[in-house]
Amino acid sequence: MEKVNKNASVEVMSNKQVIYREQVRGSLKEANLEVRTSSERLKADTGSGAIAVKNLYLACDPYNLNLIKYFTQLGSVIARVLESGHPNFKKGDLVWGLTGWEEYSLITAPETCFKIEHADVPLSHYTGLLGMPGMTAYAGFYEVCSPKKGETVFISSAAGAVGQLVGQFAKLLGCYVVGSAGSKEKVDLLKNKFGFDDAFNYKEELDLDAALKRCFPEGIDIYFENVGGKMLDAVLLNMKLHGRITVCGMISQYNLEQPEGVHNLLNLLLKRVRMEGFLVFDYYHLYPKFLETVLPQIKEGKIVYVEDIAEGLENGPAALVGVFSGRNVGKQVVMVSCE
Amino acid sequence: MEKVNKNASVEVMSNKQVIYREQVRGSLKEANLEVRTSSERLKADTGSGAIAVKNLYLACDPYNLNLIKYFTQLGSVIARVLESGHPNFKKGDLVWGLTGWEEYSLITAPETCFKIEHADVPLSHYTGLLGMPGMTAYAGFYEVCSPKKGETVFISSAAGAVGQLVGQFAKLLGCYVVGSAGSKEKVDLLKNKFGFDDAFNYKEELDLDAALKRCFPEGIDIYFENVGGKMLDAVLLNMKLHGRITVCGMISQYNLEQPEGVHNLLNLLLKRVRMEGFLVFDYYHLYPKFLETVLPQIKEGKIVYVEDIAEGLENGPAALVGVFSGRNVGKQVVMVSCE
Repeated sequence: MEKVNKNASVEVMSNKQVIYREQVRGSLKEANLEVRTSSERLKADTGSGAIAVKNLYLACDPYNLNLIKYFTQLGSVIARVLESGHPNFKKGDLVWGLTGWEEYSLITAPETCFKIEHADVPLSHYTGLLGMPGMTAYAGFYEVCSPKKGETVFISSAAGAVGQLVGQFAKLLGCYVVGSAGSKEKVDLLKNKFGFDDAFNYKEELDLDAALKRCFPEGIDIYFENVGGKMLDAVLLNMKLHGRITVCGMISQYNLEQPEGVHNLLNLLLKRVRMEGFLVFDYYHLYPKFLETVLPQIKEGKIVYVEDIAEGLENGPAALVGVFSGRNVGKQVVMVSCE
Repeated sequence: MEKVNKNASVEVMSNKQVIYREQVRGSLKEANLEVRTSSERLKADTGSGAIAVKNLYLACDPYNLNLIKYFTQLGSVIARVLESGHPNFKKGDLVWGLTGWEEYSLITAPETCFKIEHADVPLSHYTGLLGMPGMTAYAGFYEVCSPKKGETVFISSAAGAVGQLVGQFAKLLGCYVVGSAGSKEKVDLLKNKFGFDDAFNYKEELDLDAALKRCFPEGIDIYFENVGGKMLDAVLLNMKLHGRITVCGMISQYNLEQPEGVHNLLNLLLKRVRMEGFLVFDYYHLYPKFLETVLPQIKEGKIVYVEDIAEGLENGPAALVGVFSGRNVGKQVVMVSCE
């Protein structure tokens, strides 16, 4: 064990935290999470390899629930380094990565964090557009969907953190793009702000198959799957030959004790469809290429992004639970501190 | 219209046929098919582009039901040319392709048939090992599964026309291969004749998930899917990271009015699994390469094949229905004529 240098430590008398209190059964509820304040001393001593950070923004995404269930981790944050025991980081650096939902964190393996080199865009974007959801949209669309100009693309949960970007990437490539979302406000956003060719409110459609046939009379080449369940079943009836279904998430299923059955998988065979799940973690080596592509597009206004920012860590549980009922409009973020 | 040359015609006074009498509801039953004898005159006049053939063997495969339902075609046959109006075929040629289930057929587009150039193997093999099922196994395994030496491969309906070959291809590549089948006799075949590493009788397993965990403690890299439904659901729980599910068929579902629900698709995401349907029709350009690979393997005894031959066209309906209850052992064939 390395000797700890006690001279370089950060005293933190009070650290507000959101912790995962009890196992999620059925839907995620605020009661599964607890806001508490503990008293801690974070050390990032020279040579320790750790960094002590102050968290600025938290990301609330559907995948947080998978992180909670399968990796017992709450989600990703944007943070400022207060003290560094790692040669690659120094005080004042901005980073994003996975850590606790709390005011202050000690990150013992900061190699897993990304340093924020471009701070001339809103910092909160690194929870979304320029962070994990942005990379997810980029890798999922370009690396998994095998998209071609002129193809038809359907995106569910299209106004969410990932969907809004996938749609814009697809439009920039010259695809015909339709999205589904859960409110009139979101549908308007898709059509009027993100430039989708069409969009519908799935809650107002009695027959999802009919809605898809209306939007895609010739069928769907690419389905960017964020919801699963009944929507997936309806999409399977509308895929074109050699279509691709890229499974990014299945938010409609995460809160169910027993996932719904999907009945129309035989269409994978009849239409020779490729359905593929992916996780962004496998594509982080593309992050520099992604930034190189997207930063100019943001600055030129070719890519727009909508965020829904809740203020204060104590509002984190409600914000995260709200994502599963679609309460947020755009990417849900929690601001912990504006410093 | 081309003028018909009446000089080159084949008089056929009697033609026994199996026809698709009524729409299949639920399971395929013998009553859906009718054996009748009609009186016909088949013409394959010079310049007509058609060929008149005498059918020798009929193939009975699960996909026949999809052919019936979606293409109203009964299946593929092996035939001898009686008369040719097509420059590429001459009297006496042997061919295999899709036509009616009958003693004699007029094939108006013989370009869609394959000429049998190698008759030094049993002709019936062209309904299976060297025909559509063989090509299906070859294309599905090598072109869709992306197999690598040392990977673990699970094949359902493994003693069937396609499965027995996929398993042997996988063994030749150096994979660990397990198959499921529906009787002790078939399980013995898999282990003792086809060289599978292990096999189980799915009808005797109370818990398919447990059976798969027993056979694949480290999980499955490749699932060659022939059955769908509950087996697919159990496999989804046992896939390894970056596994591949190649959907060749879903025989357990073809006879259901409403397909079963598949509940564990979220594993496609968690394990980054690729699930892909394919139809052999897209891969026929590889047929010469396939023959080049497989003919020597047959002659050297590296590939073995088991057929279950029913004699007489009138036994065709029972043979085809039997495929869906797993009555056949090995590839089900109907011999129409031994000439």
